[in-house]
Amino acid sequence: MSDLDRMVRELVIANRILANEDVVDAYGHVSVRHPDDPGRYLLARSLAPELVERGDIIEFALDGTPTLEETRALYLERFIHGAIYEARPDVMAVVHAHAEAVLPFTITKTPLRPVIHSGSFMGADVPVWDIADRFGDTNLLVTNMAQGRDLARCLGRNNVALMRGHGFAAAARSLIEVVRMSVYTPRNARALLAALALGEVKPLSRGEIDARNAGYKPYSPETQRAWEYWARRAECGGGEFDVSPGIADQLRELRFPRFHVDDLRRDLREQRRRSLFGREVPRDGLFEERQLRQ
Amino acid sequence: MSDLDRMVRELVIANRILANEDVVDAYGHVSVRHPDDPGRYLLARSLAPELVERGDIIEFALDGTPTLEETRALYLERFIHGAIYEARPDVMAVVHAHAEAVLPFTITKTPLRPVIHSGSFMGADVPVWDIADRFGDTNLLVTNMAQGRDLARCLGRNNVALMRGHGFAAAARSLIEVVRMSVYTPRNARALLAALALGEVKPLSRGEIDARNAGYKPYSPETQRAWEYWARRAECGGGEFDVSPGIADQLRELRFPRFHVDDLRRDLREQRRRSLFGREVPRDGLFEERQLRQ
Amino acid sequence: MSDLDRMVRELVIANRILANEDVVDAYGHVSVRHPDDPGRYLLARSLAPELVERGDIIEFALDGTPTLEETRALYLERFIHGAIYEARPDVMAVVHAHAEAVLPFTITKTPLRPVIHSGSFMGADVPVWDIADRFGDTNLLVTNMAQGRDLARCLGRNNVALMRGHGFAAAARSLIEVVRMSVYTPRNARALLAALALGEVKPLSRGEIDARNAGYKPYSPETQRAWEYWARRAECGGGEFDVSPGIADQLRELRFPRFHVDDLRRDLREQRRRSLFGREVPRDGLFEERQLRQ
Amino acid sequence: MSDLDRMVRELVIANRILANEDVVDAYGHVSVRHPDDPGRYLLARSLAPELVERGDIIEFALDGTPTLEETRALYLERFIHGAIYEARPDVMAVVHAHAEAVLPFTITKTPLRPVIHSGSFMGADVPVWDIADRFGDTNLLVTNMAQGRDLARCLGRNNVALMRGHGFAAAARSLIEVVRMSVYTPRNARALLAALALGEVKPLSRGEIDARNAGYKPYSPETQRAWEYWARRAECGGGEFDVSPGIADQLRELRFPRFHVDDLRRDLREQRRRSLFGREVPRDGLFEERQLRQ
Repeated sequence: MSDLDRMVRELVIANRILANEDVVDAYGHVSVRHPDDPGRYLLARSLAPELVERGDIIEFALDGTPTLEETRALYLERFIHGAIYEARPDVMAVVHAHAEAVLPFTITKTPLRPVIHSGSFMGADVPVWDIADRFGDTNLLVTNMAQGRDLARCLGRNNVALMRGHGFAAAARSLIEVVRMSVYTPRNARALLAALALGEVKPLSRGEIDARNAGYKPYSPETQRAWEYWARRAECGGGEFDVSPGIADQLRELRFPRFHVDDLRRDLREQRRRSLFGREVPRDGLFEERQLRQ
Repeated sequence: MSDLDRMVRELVIANRILANEDVVDAYGHVSVRHPDDPGRYLLARSLAPELVERGDIIEFALDGTPTLEETRALYLERFIHGAIYEARPDVMAVVHAHAEAVLPFTITKTPLRPVIHSGSFMGADVPVWDIADRFGDTNLLVTNMAQGRDLARCLGRNNVALMRGHGFAAAARSLIEVVRMSVYTPRNARALLAALALGEVKPLSRGEIDARNAGYKPYSPETQRAWEYWARRAECGGGEFDVSPGIADQLRELRFPRFHVDDLRRDLREQRRRSLFGREVPRDGLFEERQLRQ
Repeated sequence: MSDLDRMVRELVIANRILANEDVVDAYGHVSVRHPDDPGRYLLARSLAPELVERGDIIEFALDGTPTLEETRALYLERFIHGAIYEARPDVMAVVHAHAEAVLPFTITKTPLRPVIHSGSFMGADVPVWDIADRFGDTNLLVTNMAQGRDLARCLGRNNVALMRGHGFAAAARSLIEVVRMSVYTPRNARALLAALALGEVKPLSRGEIDARNAGYKPYSPETQRAWEYWARRAECGGGEFDVSPGIADQLRELRFPRFHVDDLRRDLREQRRRSLFGREVPRDGLFEERQLRQ
Repeated sequence: MSDLDRMVRELVIANRILANEDVVDAYGHVSVRHPDDPGRYLLARSLAPELVERGDIIEFALDGTPTLEETRALYLERFIHGAIYEARPDVMAVVHAHAEAVLPFTITKTPLRPVIHSGSFMGADVPVWDIADRFGDTNLLVTNMAQGRDLARCLGRNNVALMRGHGFAAAARSLIEVVRMSVYTPRNARALLAALALGEVKPLSRGEIDARNAGYKPYSPETQRAWEYWARRAECGGGEFDVSPGIADQLRELRFPRFHVDDLRRDLREQRRRSLFGREVPRDGLFEERQLRQ
């Protein structure tokens, strides 16, 4: 499978994960920079993320123009993606979403900041971009490159920018990271909102944020574990199909046969019962023989 | 298919969407003005919206009388619908619901107002109607035209009126708009409630509300995308059956074969796995050939 | 079917509804007074309500003794039920549950009171019973008749009593009413909790509570609609099996064939799609012919 | 079945219960002390708890070293478990999780304390451990024995320790107890958080906590009822496979045939409908004959 095929597959799975984890609903989108050409990115046609399939993925130039003739409807706000890729060569994946839990922090002066360890990846500073500051009364949507670039300027070197009365944009070095950040930023927002009602809140220190960031590897078993879990919940299967080149072999070795394609078609519920009750395991042989591992 | 048949289908789908999105439970209802006669409207018999089928839809005169002999139980509060259609010739669809998130704003002096972009369609002003002001101690239900007309007077030219200790009534130019407003008004209410705990809140400006309203088209790809998404979540299928005359052909062209009737019977889960893993796609041929599009 | 058989069926359905609507989890229970003997009541053996079947229903004397020899484990707190039936001849059904939303009102001085129309059935006054007042340090469970009678005394002529740090007991004239009250009391509690954060709250007036109570009929189409809806959500089927004697014929006439026993075995999802897409309906014949109604 | 086999099965079920009850997501873990060797414990390889099967369970020495050669990825934070087993010979099972509802209490000065009866098992005092106090700026994870021992010291003789900006660790005399505590601690946290917004809160008294603890038996019908319920919700089946030696026979006698292995494969929904509608029960024979009980 080519890098591009693999990336398209991961992008489809990312769409479904974000839908299933309530980060996006009918609206919101996720993109990835083209693996072979940093001047392009991949993004679905205008479609609810939950419904995205491979054929829905379209290739865009950074200015938001499809690179091939295209008659299907496009996301009006695709300029968020291109403008961030343009300003940030280090960024490989972008999410724009309206997750409910971050909204209160977009319309008040209370800053969103990391207070739980899984929220550390949003970084110490989360700026709030108000489209009205430069563009006056609009429909709040980012519908051209000028608006997208203004948002990218506000984002700066940070990982997440809130958008007033609208949602957020998140940028990361990989698809798996931007998905993770998009799932845990709302959770951090809920924890912070509740804690503020109790009294003074102790946030993560800058040193802790740096320590977590320094040790973070997108394809570590810990991160891969979350991707696999979310993909399974979103009924995407998961497993060896969605990992980046270079670690597939290693992961295949660590996995049970259940992840092979044929197995994916079996009913999950049936599979669970069988795993508990159906296989004969020699008495006390479980740890000596590891007969379930190869 | 006639306009009426189409409208009945859309109305059935609207019922199920509102149930699935937690806007209604056993109670609450949605109606649409008759496409051929502005003096009538379509509304289900007394039944939980989730269970409504085509045969449950009944035609009413604006005063709440069924236009044909009818022995089935009717919604006690159908007068909400007729009174609003009577007062507002521009209104084509009405929802009455008790969505939990709006309730706090019906029993306190804190006004509900749009603070997120998807909430803009409720309009700048959301009046609160208190049935007790004119009718004293009642069971809070709108059970006759006098009460319905009093509510319609309070609604005035606005899109949403809250009902004290009870819920809300929403009115729009189309079924798709009134459903969208009914889904996002509670979301806006939750965001506002949480933000008020954090401090001073910046609402949408009147210019932003106007800009969003000016650019809104009920059958744009953006709005259609939400309808399709909600219908799929409510297990209604969705797709070409629920669009208005005039855009069905255009949409059919933009869609994959998966939306055809036969496909709708396939198990969604199986379909998803197959879309990811089952079809052979030529290496790198995805964007050149668009073989999935016709 | 005898009254007793019918009552047992309704009680099984009530168990599942309460579980599905998050009123009970592994704990909590619902009982009904024996239809032929006011000195007995029906209650499940010690089992999570979601799992209760007909064979799990046991008959008790009011003092909590099974009327037949019984070896299965019994609910420790069954004395709540007998004590209330003993004190209140008008009460035909009792629920004890720990629904999360009422808990804050059991451990603070803020009174729970009806603020939304569906909450009116809890009545104007909701006393809080603290087991410690008379019994000192206990495990908080109502494990004998003395404790049950103390709770019943606190309940008095009201419909709901909160139990400090524990939950609530609700009493009504019928099973359908006590289920309805148990579902909507937590909803009212959530609305009140949120509203109190916004400012001064306008509750239902005593006149409104009385008006709602005066007009309430347990087997009206409106109440039946909720029971049917909840039963369907809890995958119990619903329909003609769960209504009281005297209205079954009337309801059967109002219903589609889909409620017959055989139909209940069809997959709900398939059924829904077919209802929208599978039947041929003559153009414009929908209202004239009512061919779906017989 | 050996004690070890039984324990592994219970541990798999515990993993799935904790996932299904939202105590853990992709992260968090549960362990049990080895039934034959107090110097070892059983814990899954690095995997989301929802996906854990029997072959994923690994045996560790208390210092976190697998007792057999192991090439699969391991939980980075397994040292939490070993350090607690080392310090607390009475502890047989440990959970570490990030349940959202406890997080606000880890980052503020408001103490978490039991206010509802099901929360009593966390004990009167719930200390908060801040990894920064002794280890400065870290990634907040407990990645070695020194950190694990520091946490165990903070836990002391208590049942639950909160971990600042991170989650909690819970320790109990059995797997069923630690699962129960892990499910109800977040519920207690939510009730307390809401109650604090209403005013002064009355917690459980120390005498009540002691009374509940004194009367608690892990394999009583009441506790078993919850385990069975949670296991069924998590689609694990449940029933005779997950009980401890000594009570299996007693429970088997109390159960319907539906818990036998073959029955577990039947579709739950179908089973429910049949239980209500499909079996013929002689009129009024329900209580006399108990024909469903054998």
